[in-house]
Amino acid sequence: MTSTNPHGHQKGRARSTASHLAAVTELLRPLRGSARTELLPLSSALGRGLVEDVTAPVSLPPFANSQMDGYAIRSSDVPDGGTDLRVAAPVPAGAGAATLEAGTAAPIMTGAMIPEGADAVVPIERASPDHFLPAGDAARVKLPAAAPGTYVRVAGSDIAAGEQALAAGTFLGPAQLGLLAALGLPEVTVYQAPAVLLVTTGDEVVEPGRDLPAGKIYDSNGTLLEAAMTQAGLRVLRAGISTDNPEELRTLLRSQGAGADLIVTTGGVSQGAYEVVRQAMADQPVEFLHVAMQPGGPQGIGTFEGTPFLGFPGNPVSCLVSFEMFLRPALSQLLGAPAARLPVRARLGHPLTSPEHKHQVRRGRLRPDGTVQLEGGESSHLMHALAGSNVLVHVPEGVAALGTGDEVEVWML
Amino acid sequence: MTSTNPHGHQKGRARSTASHLAAVTELLRPLRGSARTELLPLSSALGRGLVEDVTAPVSLPPFANSQMDGYAIRSSDVPDGGTDLRVAAPVPAGAGAATLEAGTAAPIMTGAMIPEGADAVVPIERASPDHFLPAGDAARVKLPAAAPGTYVRVAGSDIAAGEQALAAGTFLGPAQLGLLAALGLPEVTVYQAPAVLLVTTGDEVVEPGRDLPAGKIYDSNGTLLEAAMTQAGLRVLRAGISTDNPEELRTLLRSQGAGADLIVTTGGVSQGAYEVVRQAMADQPVEFLHVAMQPGGPQGIGTFEGTPFLGFPGNPVSCLVSFEMFLRPALSQLLGAPAARLPVRARLGHPLTSPEHKHQVRRGRLRPDGTVQLEGGESSHLMHALAGSNVLVHVPEGVAALGTGDEVEVWML
Repeated sequence: MTSTNPHGHQKGRARSTASHLAAVTELLRPLRGSARTELLPLSSALGRGLVEDVTAPVSLPPFANSQMDGYAIRSSDVPDGGTDLRVAAPVPAGAGAATLEAGTAAPIMTGAMIPEGADAVVPIERASPDHFLPAGDAARVKLPAAAPGTYVRVAGSDIAAGEQALAAGTFLGPAQLGLLAALGLPEVTVYQAPAVLLVTTGDEVVEPGRDLPAGKIYDSNGTLLEAAMTQAGLRVLRAGISTDNPEELRTLLRSQGAGADLIVTTGGVSQGAYEVVRQAMADQPVEFLHVAMQPGGPQGIGTFEGTPFLGFPGNPVSCLVSFEMFLRPALSQLLGAPAARLPVRARLGHPLTSPEHKHQVRRGRLRPDGTVQLEGGESSHLMHALAGSNVLVHVPEGVAALGTGDEVEVWML
Repeated sequence: MTSTNPHGHQKGRARSTASHLAAVTELLRPLRGSARTELLPLSSALGRGLVEDVTAPVSLPPFANSQMDGYAIRSSDVPDGGTDLRVAAPVPAGAGAATLEAGTAAPIMTGAMIPEGADAVVPIERASPDHFLPAGDAARVKLPAAAPGTYVRVAGSDIAAGEQALAAGTFLGPAQLGLLAALGLPEVTVYQAPAVLLVTTGDEVVEPGRDLPAGKIYDSNGTLLEAAMTQAGLRVLRAGISTDNPEELRTLLRSQGAGADLIVTTGGVSQGAYEVVRQAMADQPVEFLHVAMQPGGPQGIGTFEGTPFLGFPGNPVSCLVSFEMFLRPALSQLLGAPAARLPVRARLGHPLTSPEHKHQVRRGRLRPDGTVQLEGGESSHLMHALAGSNVLVHVPEGVAALGTGDEVEVWML
């Protein structure tokens, strides 16, 4: 048993969550290198971050088109009280339109190009008759007046060619990929998905599905973090469970860490004895420190034989909070992916207390009425309570208590 | 050109969004059949829905354990003013603990089993000395008094064996999978991921990457919906673009629809002429109707040669709104996956108007202060505005106008 220094518990020396996020971001900055980009077809780029600004190569819409099914007219042809016009040949979909002769109305479907000379569209349901007629000399339609521009979508009214369509660092979700497609761009340059080697540590940890001897617990950290990382777009390499033998952990990291951009371990980072991760990293440039956060205070950060390393604490809720507070936002900031959590304001459904010198992260259920109900207590082992939560609830440093109805920031999980 | 009946435009006959969602849910109910479940390892079950209730086979935590690094004591050994105790052998991690002798204190790490006889833990930083000592006859530690139960996590305090851990229909995200792992369950029975055949229609639509002749537009619906469906856990089969020839569309659906659980088309469903999807479905049990919603009013629903079919409108924003309002929630309700959108209250950053007899869905950007800024106007072709949005803003039927600061329901994208 080693004698340990509980310095991390002293509030004066704990690092703020913002400082630790900055340190994690700095550690991972090489993931943003120019050698780490790739050109992907749009269908493979979902969930990635955009490397460079995209300028619109065409305008959207590319040409003035109709917003309704109806008749394209010259607005000056129709006086205030309406008039009869001869029905011209319909505007074909997907083709350039002919010039609209004066005194005629051309049937036009939504999205079709406004003919030369036409400047307004009258919807079919305001026409008489209110259904389309075969074109011909005899066919006439009575239409009300329409101001110039009515139901016309102007070319470039969504975005004009040459304007910035998406900024570097944008997360590519359905709408952003849809915009690239609308602009005619079939491929996009994105950052590579980082590969993470994930290792759970502890003599007390057993794989799910095996027998559970007295004093042991099933490994939930591995499953929890693998899923959270996969959702966030990381490629996860699972190295299984390492015992409390530091040499075994070092051997495992060496044998399986090749190709990993980042190593994440769980457990073995606090001030107790038997801290396997601390021991395995003893000769590496790794710092073990305490972040002013509850749960998830004890953290390790550095490199293991050159590979960026993060040591998360051993309790599942602490693991998830560490991921959400540090790794996920660092990746969002550097690579544009995953999408940053959107902070939402909610009202507390009941009072809470919080350690004044720490940033507390509670779990809760956000209800449709905008109130949040806390699930479980402060304790970081409450997996069932976590599984019943849909938000993380933030109580910033400096706040010791909040009452029912007080506003808090929540992040949707 | 066919003569069409614009009945869908008449508000009295439009279907409510709730009725159409119910119809879509009914259409897709067979996806919930017992033949459509599968047993997956936890690492493959992310994003799926749980078929049956899960009862906890073990308690969590499985045994009383320490919440802190410190000393396990018999609380009755320590009077109010504190006392010296002999340091016993440390409690080993991951093993059953021996009985704690009266008058001794056993070093114990977070998560280790509370020894028989012990009923409280004193954290190391409240001990004197405040670091661990080698055990032995000579070693003594001064400890303050602690009430019974202090820093002890009671067995079953998170969940007791036999209690319901997760309900049927639960979406399996990281926390839910983590809970199953914590309970020792290595596999889980989930609903199969539905396969969707996705077809964009229209003579005017061109694949991104090709030349853009006059009057044509690039297909963004295919990319947009494929990404949205993939995010929602569907398996997407892309059938490319069909022209406005109904026979071509029928041939394509027959040749590529094998194995699809659902066919989704875009375009060709409204009251205009040249409505290819309406024409292709003429002899099929498919209804074309108008939902009281803006955008996305025209909708098709039924079966094509026995396969469930949904016809979305042709504009990209209408497509996404149709997906979010009908297909996504129907799947969430039936299969527990994808996760249902969580409604959030937000305050409008500016006024809006809405057709009083329709449910309007606007796009917007939710800001950290809880206000939402609308992006683009009501028009359904504004792809760039959609790409700048992070929420859908709901203005229910019956509301014609809202002012700055009014509360609206938003769904995060």
